[in-house]
Amino acid sequence: MSPTYSITHEIRNDFGVPFTHRLLFDRAVLDPENSLLETVFECRTDGAPRSGIIAVVDQGLANAQPDLQAALTKRFSDPSLPELREVLLVPGGEACKNDPTVIDRILASIEKHRIDRRSYVAIFGGGAILDAAGFAASTAHRGVRVVRFASTVLAQLDAAIGVKNGVNRFKKKNFVGTFDVPVAVVCDESMLESLDDRHWRDGFSEAVKIACLQDATFFDAISDAADLIRDRDMDAARPIIRRCAEMHLEHIGSGGDPFERLEARPLDFGHWAAHRLESMSDFGLSHGEAVAIGICLDSAYSHLIGRLDETEFDRIIDVMTRLGLPISHPLLADDRLLTGLEEFREHLGGRLTITLLDEIGRGVDVHDVDLGILRRAITHLDSNASV
Amino acid sequence: MSPTYSITHEIRNDFGVPFTHRLLFDRAVLDPENSLLETVFECRTDGAPRSGIIAVVDQGLANAQPDLQAALTKRFSDPSLPELREVLLVPGGEACKNDPTVIDRILASIEKHRIDRRSYVAIFGGGAILDAAGFAASTAHRGVRVVRFASTVLAQLDAAIGVKNGVNRFKKKNFVGTFDVPVAVVCDESMLESLDDRHWRDGFSEAVKIACLQDATFFDAISDAADLIRDRDMDAARPIIRRCAEMHLEHIGSGGDPFERLEARPLDFGHWAAHRLESMSDFGLSHGEAVAIGICLDSAYSHLIGRLDETEFDRIIDVMTRLGLPISHPLLADDRLLTGLEEFREHLGGRLTITLLDEIGRGVDVHDVDLGILRRAITHLDSNASV
Repeated sequence: MSPTYSITHEIRNDFGVPFTHRLLFDRAVLDPENSLLETVFECRTDGAPRSGIIAVVDQGLANAQPDLQAALTKRFSDPSLPELREVLLVPGGEACKNDPTVIDRILASIEKHRIDRRSYVAIFGGGAILDAAGFAASTAHRGVRVVRFASTVLAQLDAAIGVKNGVNRFKKKNFVGTFDVPVAVVCDESMLESLDDRHWRDGFSEAVKIACLQDATFFDAISDAADLIRDRDMDAARPIIRRCAEMHLEHIGSGGDPFERLEARPLDFGHWAAHRLESMSDFGLSHGEAVAIGICLDSAYSHLIGRLDETEFDRIIDVMTRLGLPISHPLLADDRLLTGLEEFREHLGGRLTITLLDEIGRGVDVHDVDLGILRRAITHLDSNASV
Repeated sequence: MSPTYSITHEIRNDFGVPFTHRLLFDRAVLDPENSLLETVFECRTDGAPRSGIIAVVDQGLANAQPDLQAALTKRFSDPSLPELREVLLVPGGEACKNDPTVIDRILASIEKHRIDRRSYVAIFGGGAILDAAGFAASTAHRGVRVVRFASTVLAQLDAAIGVKNGVNRFKKKNFVGTFDVPVAVVCDESMLESLDDRHWRDGFSEAVKIACLQDATFFDAISDAADLIRDRDMDAARPIIRRCAEMHLEHIGSGGDPFERLEARPLDFGHWAAHRLESMSDFGLSHGEAVAIGICLDSAYSHLIGRLDETEFDRIIDVMTRLGLPISHPLLADDRLLTGLEEFREHLGGRLTITLLDEIGRGVDVHDVDLGILRRAITHLDSNASV
């Protein structure tokens, strides 16, 4: 006999989905002497065909490191690694997130080369290409395996660490995307050596951000190292990059809501303005530069409403300046900037929440912004920039 | 001082993502006297603007239930529910999964009506539209809230219960999709009343499937009720639909791997052939019909390789027949059917795994298929069908 059921009936199932997020730092990971990749890619032992892999490579990285493709081919000829079936070159930077054909090309390659859920998409590049190619890979077969090879400072200390991906639609940043966890994030120091100075520096604004929000001691460390970092001293930069990456990784697991299903609380200090500045400048400003300006703006606002001391505000401006990062921009005076507040609210959902500073190392969420004081903060920044 | 780091360094973070999956059975849920929807949609109390909702409605359902749109407008005029901002009519059935513009239309509506992560997409329809619209909604802002209103038997007992969505690309079923958990699945009996006989019957093949795999007692219950179900007796159908939905829900949470990240083990008995038959018939066969044929085929094969008794095989054929479902099809003789085995392997990844029966109520996974015996199984079915 089957049980009987009343007309109105509810069944509820609470369950958890386990994820493992691995972050690997090393240098020269494609060198055949380096066995790190053997710990990243699963070797099949159950009689299934050898797994496949396609590589999606940032065109800028391929240009800057002309030996990269040959190194990839050579390293993946090792039978203990997956079989390399195609190397796709994709324009890096925000362009790849604005162009829907990038997603189509990657999906077509996944289909053509029969990349299945036990096979891999390896993405080599900065945050934008990790986001775009990661989105394509996370939807093919509802998610093939992704390994992110982060090739910029910004990616290694922040962008590659997250459990998100996305592309831009309707001129809105990350309008479409998913939450997904890569098999591993590989941060190879040797990939940073070919960055130009601008893209070397611009990632450190995210380190300043997380230090401002959570850790005054880390802020001191960045401040102490800022001049050496600007001069591309890897020994000075390494602990900053790694500590920042660690803090981002800890944040994801610690909140109990890594996929932001409840109240979204990303580490987004300075980001509402940064997102707008990037699109208003037609991505002439890089994300890291826009974040530097956004942090300075929200720090100035925090100061003017009486939360942040002048000395602390000055320290933030000083560290940005010594890192070689911008602290202001003419577009701040353009009132289209303010629509960024509503876009930010809409993207996270619910009421507006932006993060300000009570002091360096202590962020605070607020739900109201006084536009008059915000305009004064812009003027205040501008005068700091002209000093 | 920052800590120092050796060149090679690994950080690992294991975390779980909590999900709640709710399944609500009732009738006439859009009736203003029925308060069920107030338990589904969150009422904001934190001063944020009223949440919005767009409804995506299966065109076939809207045709069959001409009062539906007016009922929607009326019910959501209640200020304790979200504000209804658009009703999108979308062709139902596999067509909506083959047409990329369906996704584009839904994304454009989400953007236009500022549906954010605290707002809703309500989907009214069968499995196909739940899949397609669910995919669009799960990627907008990396996932707005979805409520599935399942309008077919197949959706209420199976398709709407899963934590997957997807659309077809490259002529491959569900090539692109995500794993995602809706806020709730609402199964309204009154929506089943306007189904034609064919689409009333075809969902019950999924009930036979899960009974064959897991529960001989449930198989007996379906067999006892089959004639009444065929005659559309809701009191006979209700316990079958609900028990089947319960079993699907239990399966998702119980395996410890609801997003199939490890070894994919969906309840897919009879499905490798069903997926191929659907596309080979240009979707002239419905999913439920194709599943009925696929179950009969894999049962015949299970019998011919000596796993399943003849009496039990006959009982499966008998229950399908009495439910008014097909047990064979001329397309089974087309060798293109066999490419379905490789497509099935590729979609799940890893080695081929198909499920057979040792007896009714006990499925068994196998990794090899003897094509000669499979062809004999097809002939065997054909002779059963002609009796």
